Parts: sequence; structure tokens; C-alpha cells
Amino acid sequence: MRIGVLGTGTVGTTLAGKLRELGHDVLVGSRDGSKGDGTFSEVAAHGEMLLNCTAGVASMAALEQAGEQNLQGKVLVDVANPLDFSGGFPPRLSVCNDDSLGEQIQRRFPEARVVKTLNTVGAPVMVDPAIVPGEHSLFVAGDDAAAKEQVVGLLESIGWPRGRVLDLGGIVASRGLEMYLPLWVSLFGRHGSSVLNVVVVHGAAPAAGS
Amino acid sequence: MRIGVLGTGTVGTTLAGKLRELGHDVLVGSRDGSKGDGTFSEVAAHGEMLLNCTAGVASMAALEQAGEQNLQGKVLVDVANPLDFSGGFPPRLSVCNDDSLGEQIQRRFPEARVVKTLNTVGAPVMVDPAIVPGEHSLFVAGDDAAAKEQVVGLLESIGWPRGRVLDLGGIVASRGLEMYLPLWVSLFGRHGSSVLNVVVVHGAAPAAGS
Repeated sequence: MRIGVLGTGTVGTTLAGKLRELGHDVLVGSRDGSKGDGTFSEVAAHGEMLLNCTAGVASMAALEQAGEQNLQGKVLVDVANPLDFSGGFPPRLSVCNDDSLGEQIQRRFPEARVVKTLNTVGAPVMVDPAIVPGEHSLFVAGDDAAAKEQVVGLLESIGWPRGRVLDLGGIVASRGLEMYLPLWVSLFGRHGSSVLNVVVVHGAAPAAGS
Repeated sequence: MRIGVLGTGTVGTTLAGKLRELGHDVLVGSRDGSKGDGTFSEVAAHGEMLLNCTAGVASMAALEQAGEQNLQGKVLVDVANPLDFSGGFPPRLSVCNDDSLGEQIQRRFPEARVVKTLNTVGAPVMVDPAIVPGEHSLFVAGDDAAAKEQVVGLLESIGWPRGRVLDLGGIVASRGLEMYLPLWVSLFGRHGSSVLNVVVVHGAAPAAGS
């Protein structure tokens, strides 16, 4: 598949490398094209599927540069987190609570098929989930069921078993996925490495009255 | 130990019941004392340790009613989440991102020893972690190390093994613990039950260059 990766940071280059290994025709883009294989617009035009791997605080501008016509009808995987480190540590989110980056993207580009996923793990875990022991969880959210299914298939090819990928519903669930980041940052600080994740576990409901 | 539980909702009554089972001298309080064993002020005066189990959006007012003099020097376990359902579903947080309820309480009552914990699980799981299978994780955050140690001991007596309780550092980490709630709400919606939790898992950092 032709894939356009927006963003030449660690996340973009890590995902692009893995997707090339899997045989996809991947171009990675940056704002002015000086890094990667071209501009946001060129790589977005190239891709049948697009991955937003830009810094979350810059994602809306990057997608404008990619060009609305290059997003239309395409699955747009939003991996970004709107983390703002300008005020120091801990970072804040530039959008949260009543809104999320995933929703902003879907609203601005209604003909893109936005799927939020992978933003809850660090780049090394994204492309090699086995480095975290045992069964651990990933999430998808988006309004387009067929787009989510296509993304789950891609995730499976990367190494995320279908049973580990929890569908949280519409793109509104991006709020929870992005607002999880401050906890992730705390866990990262405690562990000293991004090689971590969470496993969702559940039990039977207790008997009434218990 | 004499424990004062602020809040007569499900969380307060569930925790109070468990703590009584364990032999503690527990009073549960409500705003006007018509529910539970007395007013916020009366139960706060009673407790050597206090648990804030009020609705998060009402917690600051409840603690004012409890009375600053009744909080001084005491461990104040903040179990509350500032979830605001007034705008419908999904709920928003009435405070988040640059601040948290845990921090607000600690700032307003600097002589209370605030420990944020238990807010990431539902009431049935709080008092009976074994209903969720396997090893799963709880978090503590607070500025007073001795207070956290005392709370970890209490949690251990409830059924949370020490190794499952992750210390995330100062009370500022309340942000992440409270901002996790929208994801928890999504997981609750997907699973249809509050009998769920997450397990934090981590692996070794990947080799350089990998």
C-alpha cells in the first residue's frame, strides 16, 4: 500500500521504517521537504493511507499544508499527542477535556477518515509490541468503522494482535486517549524508559448487594 | 484507627464498610448530617485519617465545611474525581491539565497531608481488588512521603499488595490520575461494568539504535 507519513521525528521515522520492512511504499514528509522524502503535500498526495506523526501542537498546521484535497476519502491515522512542553514539566495538553486533537482534525477535514491510535505508547513499542512483556492493550477510536477495521489490520501486521486492540467507539474517545498522556508521562518518569504500556483487565460484575 | 469518611455515596459507604470490617472506628459524614453518622465537620473532627469521597465537583465546598482546623496535620486521602456530568456524556473534568483537584485541596489546606489514590478504580474494585483477575495497578501521589507510606499500609490491609501500588511522586501527579478518567469512562462503557482496571507493564529499554 502507498502510505504517506507526516512528520520526520522519532515516531514518523520509526513507523515508516517498520512499514517499509512490511513492503509498503512509504514516503515521509516534513514541512518544507528538507527532511524526509518531500513536503507534507507531496507525501499526502502519494499515500492511500496517511499517518499524522507530527508534534500534536503543530498537527493542524501540518495537515493544512498537506492539503485538504490530499486527505479526502483517505484513512488518516492520528498518532499525535497535543503535548505542550513550553511551560516546562509536566507538559500540558494544548487541547483537552471538551475537545481533542483527533476531533479537531475530523471536524476540519470531514472527508478524511480519522482513526486515533498508537498515541498511548512510545515509538519503540508501536513497532515492536513484544518488547513489553505479555499481553498489553492498544486502543482505536474513530467515526468510520471500515477505516478502523483497515487500521486494525495494519496494526495486526505490525505485531498488535487483534484481541489486544480495543475499539473505544467514535472519535470523541480521542479525549480519553490524549488525556491519558499525563499519566503515561508520570509512568515514563518513574520507569525511566518509554518501554511500557498498560493492560486493560476486567472481571465479572459483583453480585447485586455485594 | 479513627477514620472520617466524607461522602455518603457509593464510594464513601463502600470504603467505610470495608474499613469497619477491618476494625477501624469509622464515621461517615454528609453535608447536613442527615445521611451517615454526622456532618462533614463532625466526622472530620473524629478522624485521625480522613477520606474525601465526595463528588469531585463538590469536594472543595465539602472540605470547607469539614473545617480547616479538622484537617490540620491529618492524612487526607483524596479519592474524588472532578467529573462534571452537567453537559451530558462524555463527562468533562471541572479542573484539569494545568491543575487538579488533588492539588487544589493541598494548596487550600497546606497543613493537610493529601494523598491521591483509589480514584482510578470503581468502588467494588477499591475494596476487593481480587474481583479483577491477576496483578493490576493502583497509584499514589502526594507531597508527604510518610503520609503516602501510611496510605500504602492501609491499602495493603484492604487487599492491594504493596508491589501493585505505584508511587507517582508529588501531588502534581494527580493531574494524570484524574485525566485518566475519560479513558476509564470509555472502558467502562465498552465493558459495561466498573469491574476493570489497568496493569502497568514495562520491558527493558531497546538496545541503542534499534
